[in-house]
Amino acid sequence: MPRLVLDISTSLDGFVAGPSPGLEHPLGVGGERLHEWAVATKAFREAHNREGGEENRDSEVLAEGIQKAGATIMGRRMFSGGQGPWADDPNADGWWGENPPFHHPVFVLTHHPRETVTKEGGTTFTFVTDGIEPAFEQARAAAGEKDIAIGGGADVAQQYLNAGLLDELQIHLAPVLLGDGTRLFEGHAEYPELELTRVVDSPAVTHLRYRVLK
Amino acid sequence: MPRLVLDISTSLDGFVAGPSPGLEHPLGVGGERLHEWAVATKAFREAHNREGGEENRDSEVLAEGIQKAGATIMGRRMFSGGQGPWADDPNADGWWGENPPFHHPVFVLTHHPRETVTKEGGTTFTFVTDGIEPAFEQARAAAGEKDIAIGGGADVAQQYLNAGLLDELQIHLAPVLLGDGTRLFEGHAEYPELELTRVVDSPAVTHLRYRVLK
Repeated sequence: MPRLVLDISTSLDGFVAGPSPGLEHPLGVGGERLHEWAVATKAFREAHNREGGEENRDSEVLAEGIQKAGATIMGRRMFSGGQGPWADDPNADGWWGENPPFHHPVFVLTHHPRETVTKEGGTTFTFVTDGIEPAFEQARAAAGEKDIAIGGGADVAQQYLNAGLLDELQIHLAPVLLGDGTRLFEGHAEYPELELTRVVDSPAVTHLRYRVLK
Repeated sequence: MPRLVLDISTSLDGFVAGPSPGLEHPLGVGGERLHEWAVATKAFREAHNREGGEENRDSEVLAEGIQKAGATIMGRRMFSGGQGPWADDPNADGWWGENPPFHHPVFVLTHHPRETVTKEGGTTFTFVTDGIEPAFEQARAAAGEKDIAIGGGADVAQQYLNAGLLDELQIHLAPVLLGDGTRLFEGHAEYPELELTRVVDSPAVTHLRYRVLK
């Protein structure tokens, strides 16, 4: 049975994106600093069909998540490119290019029905208009024996956590204080219990893995 | 030269206390769960003049902080007992008892002038009415070669961090989602850069130590 997992980079003060996201700063001011650890790795570059990158513990943790995932669920804004010029165009393909880094079926939560988009390298984008549970069911069927990854954004992650559907949470905690932005945990919520199952650290980031108790 | 250090337990969602603090829940609903890792240790029990407790990595980390500290700075509410019945009585001694766990000089930030209170076991409480920098200077003189610990609450920690006076930050990250409460990092702030210098983990908590870059 596929597990639903969330791998997400946050700042030490709990933000997944900086303040004032827009054309100039798609991830908010300073938001790209949360992902520097990942972008530097060989695993990230391989997924993006690029050479080079560092082979280190961070790369191993990232590669592990990539290898385990057989399907991804993401929000429409994450698909269409965050705050880019196409953010409000439901038919835009966004920023993923011709050969996206997923290499498996991706299910996009949206209010706009649309035909499945097939890209190079094994990535398909299927648009799901009837909510998080049907998206989860479709992703489960597609993932086979592998995991289902939540590709973001924070609001999608929150919805799955609050619905009790999440099995594992891995926070990649960057040694950065953003001071403002979009929080992963907005507060005023009731959350399940967690069990800390693994910590991997490097100078660039601390990988904290939790099992969600049900 | 003494360093100013903050050792503080937070939830994974960034809270240092739960919601609705009051007589029934002095640390807010669920807030005591942030400190379970500490209360279980031999180091904690020794500081509180009690026997027993676990001898583990968590105890070592706690003992290290206790041994390094030569003075503590805290807010008036932290001195007088949070949300207890004495919280608004500036002359109350609060909850620290006859032999408080500090065993060194403590400087209390307050608007109410008051004579120094001398307790058993080496703890004194000196009341500082002219702000965080004079309190820091007094604590520095008292600490000798040791560190100065910030005893909380979150608002006092924030003030020293924002003033650029903090040298080290150690977050004891409990595997708990409180969902609501008092945040360590409230947002809408400009913070200094950090360097991750050490990670120690146990099933109960992850100890994350950062150097504040100046």
